[in-house]
Amino acid sequence: MPSAVILIADGTEEMEFTITYDTLVRGGVKTISAFVPDLTLASSGGEVHRVSPPVAKGSRGINIMPDTYFDQAHCGPDSYDLLVIPGGAKGAETMSKSPSVQELVKKYLENDKWVGMICAGSLAAKTANLPRQKITSHPSVKAELQQDFEYIEEPVVVSGKLITSRGPGTAFPFALTLVELLCGSEKRAEIRGPLCFPPNTPF
Amino acid sequence: MPSAVILIADGTEEMEFTITYDTLVRGGVKTISAFVPDLTLASSGGEVHRVSPPVAKGSRGINIMPDTYFDQAHCGPDSYDLLVIPGGAKGAETMSKSPSVQELVKKYLENDKWVGMICAGSLAAKTANLPRQKITSHPSVKAELQQDFEYIEEPVVVSGKLITSRGPGTAFPFALTLVELLCGSEKRAEIRGPLCFPPNTPF
Repeated sequence: MPSAVILIADGTEEMEFTITYDTLVRGGVKTISAFVPDLTLASSGGEVHRVSPPVAKGSRGINIMPDTYFDQAHCGPDSYDLLVIPGGAKGAETMSKSPSVQELVKKYLENDKWVGMICAGSLAAKTANLPRQKITSHPSVKAELQQDFEYIEEPVVVSGKLITSRGPGTAFPFALTLVELLCGSEKRAEIRGPLCFPPNTPF
Repeated sequence: MPSAVILIADGTEEMEFTITYDTLVRGGVKTISAFVPDLTLASSGGEVHRVSPPVAKGSRGINIMPDTYFDQAHCGPDSYDLLVIPGGAKGAETMSKSPSVQELVKKYLENDKWVGMICAGSLAAKTANLPRQKITSHPSVKAELQQDFEYIEEPVVVSGKLITSRGPGTAFPFALTLVELLCGSEKRAEIRGPLCFPPNTPF
């Protein structure tokens, strides 16, 4: 059974998080969410210790309880097949500026595992110093990416094992693409029907 | 500022809940979620008292912390302009079988306020004994609705103040329709752009 870890932080775009998580579960992917604390909140400069379990406050105010804390040792490519970094300006900033997250992004790709980034989550490709390749993101962070990458304005961009996407409105094709890559095109087709997309939906 | 209350329960479809809540907030609608307990869990037959705040376990395992408990007195049409009942088989069952929810659905419509139902949430139209009118739902509960209503297989059905929709794949057009009805078509167009739907998306 393929597996995935989806990062979540205060300020994560809750639609991108939820659509990806839910669709992966529908595809039969063992999925967990891992909370990345905002280290700038720590007056001591060390790890932030919050109430347990923590609650991530989404970008539009929905409070989501993560399944676990983010921990580089337990969220690595030896444990999961896919690492997902959702958007939401503040949440993506917390994740992309985390040295542990940056290192994990590189480790997943080095180990030939999948990495998905959507919306402002694509900033982690830059902070992780990934080599120049095809990428997309939310238009609001295009300027920060177009120098270092081959920026493409398509709903979902597959570049080797790195999958990037644009925003809440592309979260379904992003998630369905991840299901297809992890579980095959038949599984994608199987779970698409009950989602009830309107006729002529282009994904 | 228009306002909305979205019900949530254990088993609520988390994409339908989250897309509707988030999109309404983007539209400038003051939105809160209210937790409906599963009364069949109460051995005493009375209200279920859970830890506070409660956490709703979504249909695919995402734990969402509601903003408040459902309370007929404080969730009525004198407090909010819109009542939303999301799907997810188990969550929709809990809501549609709740006499308090049934009464509230009728009160909203009697007071010329909006009611939105999506997916299996449309079952509440039946349990609230709403008069025969145009309706849609997830295909899985069509058989329970087509005798009492004029069943239509369209992504979003507007029947007076009752708006119904089909599933996670129609949650965006459902939510955008609610924004348009509460805030106008200009607001709908304004928030649609940054969502970054793929070209030719039919909503």
